[in-house]
Amino acid sequence: MSAIDRLIQLLAKLPGLGPRSARRAALHLVKRRETLLVPLARALAEAADAIRTCSVCGNLDAGDPCAVCADTRRDPSVICVVEDVADLWALERAGSFRGTYHVLGGVLSALDGVGPEDLNLSALVTRAGAGAVTEVILATSATVDGQTTAHYIAERLAGCNVVVSGLAHGVPVGGELDYLDDGTLSAALKARRPVE
Amino acid sequence: MSAIDRLIQLLAKLPGLGPRSARRAALHLVKRRETLLVPLARALAEAADAIRTCSVCGNLDAGDPCAVCADTRRDPSVICVVEDVADLWALERAGSFRGTYHVLGGVLSALDGVGPEDLNLSALVTRAGAGAVTEVILATSATVDGQTTAHYIAERLAGCNVVVSGLAHGVPVGGELDYLDDGTLSAALKARRPVE
Repeated sequence: MSAIDRLIQLLAKLPGLGPRSARRAALHLVKRRETLLVPLARALAEAADAIRTCSVCGNLDAGDPCAVCADTRRDPSVICVVEDVADLWALERAGSFRGTYHVLGGVLSALDGVGPEDLNLSALVTRAGAGAVTEVILATSATVDGQTTAHYIAERLAGCNVVVSGLAHGVPVGGELDYLDDGTLSAALKARRPVE
Repeated sequence: MSAIDRLIQLLAKLPGLGPRSARRAALHLVKRRETLLVPLARALAEAADAIRTCSVCGNLDAGDPCAVCADTRRDPSVICVVEDVADLWALERAGSFRGTYHVLGGVLSALDGVGPEDLNLSALVTRAGAGAVTEVILATSATVDGQTTAHYIAERLAGCNVVVSGLAHGVPVGGELDYLDDGTLSAALKARRPVE
């Protein structure tokens, strides 16, 4: 197989790229040797070298512990539990959480055969029980599997002396009521609060 | 900037990937270190090393002359002129052309300020005039700029002793009449042929 065909085949494995767009991306790269192809090859090699899973929280970052766990300005007494590294990144982009994280690596799912032992769960219980933690925020998805997982974790943490909380449900900021589903509207009504 | 941020920034420069999908792709890569991240880094480095522009036809391939120009089973007396390497690849996938190619690297465009000297044109005239070539097929796009370019090339080749031809216009194979534009339908009617 030629160098270009191998490149196209690998690019087609990226999410969002099919065989046709992988071809387009490969040509784009090959035409921009110095500005894109070489820097991307270098960035990938560096990422392969540097990036590892944080042994504390399960985040992916250059260095172990990760930048979040290593940051002494952050509050280690609050742990936010997320399904995936992508969720951690999303919360970091929002920039309003100053505690630490714990990445589960998925959710419990009878259908997909994912049990508690497949998730990064016992490490969470150990962290929560170590004494320094006062609150665990369960930020799993608002799906059936996500909420099942949250309930399971809440039960597992019952023995630890921590407050277990969950994200608020309601109208997304900037969202129009007209486009919202019934469940979200009901939740937003139920959790209504006095206007200050 | 961290290794992951740099990777995301570079991936976002690929066609078809925005900042959001670049983030998804980066995470996908970092999670699949051995099966995708390392092989892709290697494939890119290899492509950067091996791939160059063919000095004969302007194709991008590992090696100069490219695999098409170097293939002795192909007919060097017919040259198919295309705008871009992507068009050459498309014709090669179709697999019915056994001649050689010439890649212009664009089309004439008054709007974008692309003149004849910006295209790989004089090399084409030299190739066509060298004596071994009998036919030049103009396979530029059926757009205004593409057809202007084809007319210009036909004029430039008037001095060479070669047949200059263009691709047929008509109904795409598998295409429904209902969805075709008026221009294509008119062209297909005008170029109708006896049923054998």
